[in-house]
Amino acid sequence: MADELTKAENNAHLLLADWVLPIASDPIPDGAVLVVQGRIARVGRRREVHPPNGAAVTHLGACALMPALVNCHTHLEYAALPACGDGLPFHQWIANLYLRSQRVPPDRRAEAARSEARRMVMGGVTAVGDCGPEGFAADAMREAQLGGVAFQEVFGIDEREDLEGHMADLRRRVDLCRRSGVRPGVSPHSPYTAGPALLRLVDEYARAEELPVAIHVAESKGEIDRLMGWERVYSLARGRYAIWRPPRTTPIRYLRDLGLLKPGVVCVHCVRVDDEEIDMLAEAGVGVALCPRSNALHGNGLPRIRELMDAGVAVGFGTDGACSVGRADLLEEARFALAAERARVGSADAISSRQVLEAVTLGSARVLGLDGEVGSIEPGKAADLVALQLPGPAVTAEEVFGVVLLGSRGVRMTMRAGRVVWDAAPTGREAELDVGT
Amino acid sequence: MADELTKAENNAHLLLADWVLPIASDPIPDGAVLVVQGRIARVGRRREVHPPNGAAVTHLGACALMPALVNCHTHLEYAALPACGDGLPFHQWIANLYLRSQRVPPDRRAEAARSEARRMVMGGVTAVGDCGPEGFAADAMREAQLGGVAFQEVFGIDEREDLEGHMADLRRRVDLCRRSGVRPGVSPHSPYTAGPALLRLVDEYARAEELPVAIHVAESKGEIDRLMGWERVYSLARGRYAIWRPPRTTPIRYLRDLGLLKPGVVCVHCVRVDDEEIDMLAEAGVGVALCPRSNALHGNGLPRIRELMDAGVAVGFGTDGACSVGRADLLEEARFALAAERARVGSADAISSRQVLEAVTLGSARVLGLDGEVGSIEPGKAADLVALQLPGPAVTAEEVFGVVLLGSRGVRMTMRAGRVVWDAAPTGREAELDVGT
Repeated sequence: MADELTKAENNAHLLLADWVLPIASDPIPDGAVLVVQGRIARVGRRREVHPPNGAAVTHLGACALMPALVNCHTHLEYAALPACGDGLPFHQWIANLYLRSQRVPPDRRAEAARSEARRMVMGGVTAVGDCGPEGFAADAMREAQLGGVAFQEVFGIDEREDLEGHMADLRRRVDLCRRSGVRPGVSPHSPYTAGPALLRLVDEYARAEELPVAIHVAESKGEIDRLMGWERVYSLARGRYAIWRPPRTTPIRYLRDLGLLKPGVVCVHCVRVDDEEIDMLAEAGVGVALCPRSNALHGNGLPRIRELMDAGVAVGFGTDGACSVGRADLLEEARFALAAERARVGSADAISSRQVLEAVTLGSARVLGLDGEVGSIEPGKAADLVALQLPGPAVTAEEVFGVVLLGSRGVRMTMRAGRVVWDAAPTGREAELDVGT
Repeated sequence: MADELTKAENNAHLLLADWVLPIASDPIPDGAVLVVQGRIARVGRRREVHPPNGAAVTHLGACALMPALVNCHTHLEYAALPACGDGLPFHQWIANLYLRSQRVPPDRRAEAARSEARRMVMGGVTAVGDCGPEGFAADAMREAQLGGVAFQEVFGIDEREDLEGHMADLRRRVDLCRRSGVRPGVSPHSPYTAGPALLRLVDEYARAEELPVAIHVAESKGEIDRLMGWERVYSLARGRYAIWRPPRTTPIRYLRDLGLLKPGVVCVHCVRVDDEEIDMLAEAGVGVALCPRSNALHGNGLPRIRELMDAGVAVGFGTDGACSVGRADLLEEARFALAAERARVGSADAISSRQVLEAVTLGSARVLGLDGEVGSIEPGKAADLVALQLPGPAVTAEEVFGVVLLGSRGVRMTMRAGRVVWDAAPTGREAELDVGT
């Protein structure tokens, strides 16, 4: 017991910052977070938090110390193709990506995924909801010490496809994921690329193995056209039009009818949802991963963020893949979400900086089912933290969220489970930036 | 003459990059730009551009070498107040900024402006259209070697104000500007803060001294309400409601009626313009400085970029001030413009990456009347260049604009008139980012 205590003390780390934003509670000026054994032990005003003897102390100075960011939807496996096919109509863009990706050697794709995972850590992210069809994203996450869920994508819209073969490959990738110590999930790609038979098989498997499920849904007008039977569905894998029976309803209603709207399911995008569908999402307790910059760039419109939040839907933000947005920078995504939603609604109070910062931390963690572990600075949670450099010395409590989200000068430090995984202590050149601001 | 030639040779600098985007012509793979005496001497394929003996040679490698960016609207004098009052209704936000700014000591504001000007250079910008009421932005521009126009703002909506006093102060600042070697302009702030008498005085002065003019116009619904006489106008300087006669027309029509729509005038924002007003802007040959991120964040909506471009209006992009957007990062503004305009129109072909990159270089230069000097890589123009780090080795000609705009890993180098003013040659840590992408 004495040994245990000594060890705890030796693993204690006190972080001090001009501002601490716990997200689950109000901002704390001149704040402190005590980390013990990789977990948050205390948070409060500096004078209230007393470190045990021998604790390491880090003075972050003009920083806002927050829960680390959670990127609840991305595609590490397409990181080798940034902004690939930018400007193509969305369903042409998907086909183009599929073909282009096959021409990139597997080792280059794996390397790009590793590099992208590392950049995410440098960008303040410690957990992602990644979706990919090949399984190598999990390795990239492990190497970069990036937590979260590696959703294994599966496709199969045509009734004639070898669904058992697809499921066998899915199980193989889930097992690989587990062996490499990364939390697996499953992801039937979308209602127009995974048919009802495959959706049911994946659902059964996910229930049996208690795996989270992610699905791209209500992303584009083309998706609705296909589900309504107004447009034929092409199977990229088979290189021909698919045989399937369109459900002749909208995407969210279709998932509800299949029994797929339930806790543990992540609905990605949800751009084209009506008021009734928003209520369905809220009542079902699914998580919604929003990627507004991707939606905008693909010409798919903007998600109804305010209405989703008002209805009580668990909303988080993801960057989507670099293949869509070029750089999977979650802070830029958050800034985009703030501005774009205010433009969509036509009012500066449509959404606040505080709401966006909450969504990109605790909200995204909820979407991935990780909010018991990360997403806020609360005693008992893992010490997944990010320090964002403040632009100036004098920030008021009312303005701190806006200044942090819009004005921060970059990520000063990222911590995962108490370990510093990125430290951007200003070098001479970087320090120059802070003069006089 | 021999001496002249020798000097030219000694000042010759050959820049080589995987891609050169001259903007005024098609992208050049494996390209070269020869700079002599601070000006562009040649541009072409590497094998076509032969440097004189003794020329310096810089191998930029996986970069896109472009004309430096031009930020055609910003407010360096408010850099000390990033994201100040974020979320307030727009006209409350303006009043709040005015009051808050007065409480910041002048030396801190001047320091923040210098720091902001330097950050702009580090962000690839070599010319700005700055608007400020105090005159110290010009010093910040000069120190940072940032070119462009320092528009001197002037206010005075109330008929009872000392307009001659305002004009005397304006002349003083214009002279100061000239003495510090920075190109001056004048800026009656807006149609609801500068009355018709002041607008006429400024117009006469600008014509006499051949000064460019900038004015915030058609930015908000509140502006239209004031011009239509639906809302009273408050004079911040006098602390009371102003006496003025609202023109009872829309902002662009009002400027036209006053004879202010003409070449040499920069109309900033132009969010709330109808089709007829867009035609007026095009026919008048004014420049339009768009700041979509600021408009969005303030709840003022989004500019009609596509319609303005289609009508042939000279369109450029500016960040607006850090007080509005937090970080006056022009590349992020350009990415926002691309995504937001596609969301507004609802189509991925609403605007292309190429159009946005042209607008943020040559377009912005045109808006400021500087396109004879900067904005494209053409022989004879000043060697104002930026090298953007490409994310990967294999970029096709069709995709290079999208990859550069959305995927670039940052500014590798900024050059002003042949002189390197920012060099971010990768250090060990930065180099880590490029592994495997």
